[in-house]
Amino acid sequence: MSAAVANFDDILAAAARIAPHAHVTPVLRSGGLDAIAGCTLAFKGEHLQRTGAFKFRGACNAVWRLSDAEAARGVVTHSSGNHGAALALAARTRDMACHVVLPAGTVRAKLAAIASHGAVMHRCAPGITAREAACAEVLAATGGNLVHPYADPAVIAGQGTAALELLAAAGPLDALVVPVGGGGLAAGTALALAACAPDCRLYLAEPAGAAETRDSLARGERVTDFTPDTLCDGLRGTLGQPGFDILRAHGAEVLVVDDADTVAAMRLLWQRMKQVVEPSSAIVLAAVLGNRERFAGQRVGLVLSGGNVDLDALPWAA
Amino acid sequence: MSAAVANFDDILAAAARIAPHAHVTPVLRSGGLDAIAGCTLAFKGEHLQRTGAFKFRGACNAVWRLSDAEAARGVVTHSSGNHGAALALAARTRDMACHVVLPAGTVRAKLAAIASHGAVMHRCAPGITAREAACAEVLAATGGNLVHPYADPAVIAGQGTAALELLAAAGPLDALVVPVGGGGLAAGTALALAACAPDCRLYLAEPAGAAETRDSLARGERVTDFTPDTLCDGLRGTLGQPGFDILRAHGAEVLVVDDADTVAAMRLLWQRMKQVVEPSSAIVLAAVLGNRERFAGQRVGLVLSGGNVDLDALPWAA
Repeated sequence: MSAAVANFDDILAAAARIAPHAHVTPVLRSGGLDAIAGCTLAFKGEHLQRTGAFKFRGACNAVWRLSDAEAARGVVTHSSGNHGAALALAARTRDMACHVVLPAGTVRAKLAAIASHGAVMHRCAPGITAREAACAEVLAATGGNLVHPYADPAVIAGQGTAALELLAAAGPLDALVVPVGGGGLAAGTALALAACAPDCRLYLAEPAGAAETRDSLARGERVTDFTPDTLCDGLRGTLGQPGFDILRAHGAEVLVVDDADTVAAMRLLWQRMKQVVEPSSAIVLAAVLGNRERFAGQRVGLVLSGGNVDLDALPWAA
Repeated sequence: MSAAVANFDDILAAAARIAPHAHVTPVLRSGGLDAIAGCTLAFKGEHLQRTGAFKFRGACNAVWRLSDAEAARGVVTHSSGNHGAALALAARTRDMACHVVLPAGTVRAKLAAIASHGAVMHRCAPGITAREAACAEVLAATGGNLVHPYADPAVIAGQGTAALELLAAAGPLDALVVPVGGGGLAAGTALALAACAPDCRLYLAEPAGAAETRDSLARGERVTDFTPDTLCDGLRGTLGQPGFDILRAHGAEVLVVDDADTVAAMRLLWQRMKQVVEPSSAIVLAAVLGNRERFAGQRVGLVLSGGNVDLDALPWAA
């Protein structure tokens, strides 16, 4: 298990730890999209990361920070998909066992990816309670190490490395927009910005049908009792306590986005940038396009978080 | 009008001429696809070129080699889509008029692109005869300069710059696979390889439903009387005389590909590389996967020629 709280030193350590395994993904630009948005966009292409999502960063950091004795007992997690595939491949880079608890409703392409990396798969009902119960069972049976998809400090630190690379490649930014679901990427990004670019404002793009981060930050306490209703399948999780604490301290601002706007932005990214990104990624562009005045003329970073889409069930198909 | 035949010096001149306007597109790699193919693949990402296709190279070269007096009369072409959009944008870089004759059946996304770059559009019946007749009419009416989509030597020279960049970025290759339709890219590539990499074999990926390049090279004369039947909308044109002469002299080999294999390869490129490429691009990967023994263990370059797809009519949709 990791230390209780992640900090910037953990991000730097994570960057060194995952360097032999993770890709340094490119920063993508589009003059056409800049013209549409009225600002200068720098997209961090994490859909081009191994396993097709930023999640590999956190999973890889969590796997490689284990002692040999811990590693021998394997890793266990629950995931709606991308974290599961990421942990499965990360475990394989260290020849470890990996168990993934999957809630019903997981995107087929993500299931196939998890299986292809050799993980043992366990199905469960949807919802955080069922996921955690099933996970506890597997942990008890295997003695493995829990790698929580977004509350584990090693995972948060790993996700923070994406922002480090983006700042290094894109230069100064006025704003950075990341999607928020469980909050691992958002929290890691907040820690990276606080240390490296304190003047860069952090925006969290959140689906209107799962806007509990907005509600949690507004109330000053975590809202955990809600039923997500969004096609952003990667953003249905509940903001974790570490993410809540870090994002609240940082003063991150939430931009709520309707799924219809996310789908329109996804089409734009496919058509104009020729990049296959999933709805949970496209939401960041939708957040900018829905708040043009706020970003006008600025240098805006956006993390395209993943590209694992079921090509037989595209959201604009009738 | 250009000189009658393109040569390697023309390619070098084209590279310098288009440099201020065209992107140097990235070379993309995928360990996953290498494992599937059994060889090392280096994809030249021309779907990331301006207007979403390599065609911008040739069009840009043709536009910028005109004298000021010629340029004042504008340019005219016929095109099933990508060349039309490319010429429209190229003409705009020089503030010139551009007329595009479009055969019925052009992909909607390509029509929209041509319109967005400000070209005057003229519809005609499908087939090369109707296209050329309509084009002649517009030429007579405007006094403009014909920029043929694949037979113009300036276009062939421009298309050859993609292979130059690929060789520079990817290092030595054992084989290079490009799609063949009218033969502009294929001929430009042949000229570039002959000068820079004479040991690199050139393969032309051609749809089974429009395999007149194979037939033409086999017979030793151009086959022009055929009705294309392929979903590779960019490869329905007839091999031009300059392309025929250059490809025959070079000894390029044709690999014929069924549309079903092209669609499967297109899905692989979308899923594994997260790149939106059109069927006329995916055919190059299909050609390699359908001829594994021939490429086993080799360093294989592939030109992903374009990414202009109608997202509402994907070839795997029921």
